[in-house]
Amino acid sequence: MRLGESILLRAEHKGKLREFITIVSEEKFHTDFGIIDLEELLQKEVGDTITSHMGQEFVIQKPRMPDHFKYAKRTGAPMMPKDIGSVIAYTGLNKEDSVLDAGTGSGILAMYLGSIAKRVVSYEVRDEFVDVARKNMERAGLDNVEVRCGNIVDEIATLDEKFDVVTLDTIDSKDVVLNVRKVLRPGGFVVTYSPFIEQTKDIRERMAEVGFVDVVTIECIEREISFSERGTRPATTRVGHTGFITVARM
Amino acid sequence: MRLGESILLRAEHKGKLREFITIVSEEKFHTDFGIIDLEELLQKEVGDTITSHMGQEFVIQKPRMPDHFKYAKRTGAPMMPKDIGSVIAYTGLNKEDSVLDAGTGSGILAMYLGSIAKRVVSYEVRDEFVDVARKNMERAGLDNVEVRCGNIVDEIATLDEKFDVVTLDTIDSKDVVLNVRKVLRPGGFVVTYSPFIEQTKDIRERMAEVGFVDVVTIECIEREISFSERGTRPATTRVGHTGFITVARM
Amino acid sequence: MRLGESILLRAEHKGKLREFITIVSEEKFHTDFGIIDLEELLQKEVGDTITSHMGQEFVIQKPRMPDHFKYAKRTGAPMMPKDIGSVIAYTGLNKEDSVLDAGTGSGILAMYLGSIAKRVVSYEVRDEFVDVARKNMERAGLDNVEVRCGNIVDEIATLDEKFDVVTLDTIDSKDVVLNVRKVLRPGGFVVTYSPFIEQTKDIRERMAEVGFVDVVTIECIEREISFSERGTRPATTRVGHTGFITVARM
Amino acid sequence: MRLGESILLRAEHKGKLREFITIVSEEKFHTDFGIIDLEELLQKEVGDTITSHMGQEFVIQKPRMPDHFKYAKRTGAPMMPKDIGSVIAYTGLNKEDSVLDAGTGSGILAMYLGSIAKRVVSYEVRDEFVDVARKNMERAGLDNVEVRCGNIVDEIATLDEKFDVVTLDTIDSKDVVLNVRKVLRPGGFVVTYSPFIEQTKDIRERMAEVGFVDVVTIECIEREISFSERGTRPATTRVGHTGFITVARM
Repeated sequence: MRLGESILLRAEHKGKLREFITIVSEEKFHTDFGIIDLEELLQKEVGDTITSHMGQEFVIQKPRMPDHFKYAKRTGAPMMPKDIGSVIAYTGLNKEDSVLDAGTGSGILAMYLGSIAKRVVSYEVRDEFVDVARKNMERAGLDNVEVRCGNIVDEIATLDEKFDVVTLDTIDSKDVVLNVRKVLRPGGFVVTYSPFIEQTKDIRERMAEVGFVDVVTIECIEREISFSERGTRPATTRVGHTGFITVARM
Repeated sequence: MRLGESILLRAEHKGKLREFITIVSEEKFHTDFGIIDLEELLQKEVGDTITSHMGQEFVIQKPRMPDHFKYAKRTGAPMMPKDIGSVIAYTGLNKEDSVLDAGTGSGILAMYLGSIAKRVVSYEVRDEFVDVARKNMERAGLDNVEVRCGNIVDEIATLDEKFDVVTLDTIDSKDVVLNVRKVLRPGGFVVTYSPFIEQTKDIRERMAEVGFVDVVTIECIEREISFSERGTRPATTRVGHTGFITVARM
Repeated sequence: MRLGESILLRAEHKGKLREFITIVSEEKFHTDFGIIDLEELLQKEVGDTITSHMGQEFVIQKPRMPDHFKYAKRTGAPMMPKDIGSVIAYTGLNKEDSVLDAGTGSGILAMYLGSIAKRVVSYEVRDEFVDVARKNMERAGLDNVEVRCGNIVDEIATLDEKFDVVTLDTIDSKDVVLNVRKVLRPGGFVVTYSPFIEQTKDIRERMAEVGFVDVVTIECIEREISFSERGTRPATTRVGHTGFITVARM
Repeated sequence: MRLGESILLRAEHKGKLREFITIVSEEKFHTDFGIIDLEELLQKEVGDTITSHMGQEFVIQKPRMPDHFKYAKRTGAPMMPKDIGSVIAYTGLNKEDSVLDAGTGSGILAMYLGSIAKRVVSYEVRDEFVDVARKNMERAGLDNVEVRCGNIVDEIATLDEKFDVVTLDTIDSKDVVLNVRKVLRPGGFVVTYSPFIEQTKDIRERMAEVGFVDVVTIECIEREISFSERGTRPATTRVGHTGFITVARM
């Protein structure tokens, strides 16, 4: 493994699974099960094990986005995988894309975007959220995601870069939509995520004003199917509404 | 633009939009609105226009996956974006991944996977589907997607490559699941897509036998929200059930 | 059978099922399969057969509401059984109830209400709809449903009767809600049905103004499950959104 | 009011609503807010008030089914109003109907059925559930619902009565279906309610064997819409799957 690489250390302790995500470095990593010398990782590969000073063995894995979703530090309710998946599929997000993101929060969406796209610029207005998001990016080894502190409504005027996809998860989405054209490549997509119908309606009105095409709003309702000895059925408990996703194209 | 690049040519003719996807080459491209000399594209950029011998002007765009979804040749009902999005998000598919896919069909899912991952190997058992899928990959400029003719149930034994993600959309998924471990990297995901409950149940039983963890089956129900002068409401017509997605990890 | 009773005549003709709903009377009933002397029904019982002058045999049945839903004359899209069921269950409609209904349309909801409640008064503003609804009530033998021509918004002021349940399926529901208290018995329910979110929001605002309690808005999404040789799954085609049901109590 | 009538007594105490359902009798009724002399009710009407020996005032109301749903004693998870509504609407349950019910449980469905139909016979195999259900019927003043202790699978052979509707919420539904024809009137409906797909599939196979027609299985997914200062959206928490409803006709 190499310095700066994101790794997941998995231990089984008294029948319970414990996982830690960190970065290969020359430092010591403190866990409930003893201290791990991260420098040793330079001589290891994914699938190998490493042992703490207390003798606890850890399997070394490469963390994937579902691991980051689970273990990243959170500053609020992040976008759910079902919705992130729709954002990716409806924009056709791919490895050649530059993405402009706003409303970073803890950066869960930006992490997913960064794991796929070439480059992501993400704006967050609250200092403390910027810090959390930056740490999440670092721990995920995503050096192509740049988290900037600032209000996208104002900052968009100063941008002279073009983007293939713009993702907006902020209460100011409707105002960003008015000025987003100038930073969007031809054929590019803008996507907004809003919990409420009224916000979504405002966004769509602005999109119509500005002349976006192929505007569609969807809600993704996910049902888990439960399989057990007793039988098969949709799960009896579940997550309700998260948000409305509006996709539009220039 | 460069040779081999995928392009979308968009014309407005008598108020109607017409779009064509092709590849930059030294050939002529025949449309209802006249012949286009594709060689001219070498001197053009995205956003420029090109004119047919009949004088029809076309805007040059870079096609994105939603364009390919719309215009790719189809051999049957492809997986829908809502489901493709879930496959991507729940596996955390990213640009460093190698993917093994089976049940290529017309290759819609493989195209999406290929636009994100480093490499995709996709197995399809029917010759004529392989041809269609290969043409779709070519037209999308996806030279990292290798469509192979063969039955994955047998072929999996011959593979000595490892994959991060395995996606299965075939009636034989349950048999593949039994042997998929040997080609899956540690921490990697296998995803199956099946229209029916019985198939899904069989798959889950095999997954349990083989010792997969974090097994979850979901159904993604998408609702479009309609906004009009009369008011806002979920759309009155819509797509019903497509398939159950089962995600498991090694 | 007795005069005025509603009957369903069912014939099988060349493997196809044909059904007619009519009323026991002294008249002749003309069908594609010959003329039936309805007077003969006075000597028959449910389950017996009757023969047309062309020799076609008909089984005599008692029509139930799903038959009326299928065969009643329609002036527009009626409320669906899933929504009618919610109206009934959430108000606890029972055989001792008096119901005030508005926006009769073809009277499908009023028929269901009338088959359960003691008495239904239903207002419809369009003359031609009133005629259709009255014929539907007659044919269903529902002499406890009184269809009145008039605008409920105005007429409610003239009513000195009290009702246990008020059901509103009209664009004026929000205005009715303002004055509905005076005709509602203590503990009684008002229910509105509206296709759009905006209408529903208006209704809820008025309900809050007037001091209704236990206000709840639901949408009932019905999925049909399909069972076939190939397997079990939710149906691939289906009805989308119909309307939002708001229930409130005095 | 008259002896044996079901009443709801509603008190507001320190800003909190407290409700009690009981029966008009010559007895005393003990509440946290003092003793009420129920005999006084004979001189009262709905809408009047009655005062406890501690001076707490109670408004007298007539309880409706949603009140009984809320306050009836429960022996397990009862059928939900959304599903009860579907049972009623899809069978066209009406005030002339005789209903055979099985799997009484605490009798919530039987109470709804009894409030609409002329007569309900309901079988429950567990003694202690029969007691609870009978008390619920009594408290609701439903003397037309007869709760019998016994296994419907066996008892159906002994029945010489005919029913318009048969409702089955028991793990033995599939066995009842085989013999239900002999107690069902022509044109009558049988409805089953089962949490699991496998049970539902068994039931449908038996229905096909026995020759039922118009067989349809539905699942009713209810979404509550939430309206607040912040905006309108489907509720973020909600009930998941309850059961599959299968309706068939003879």
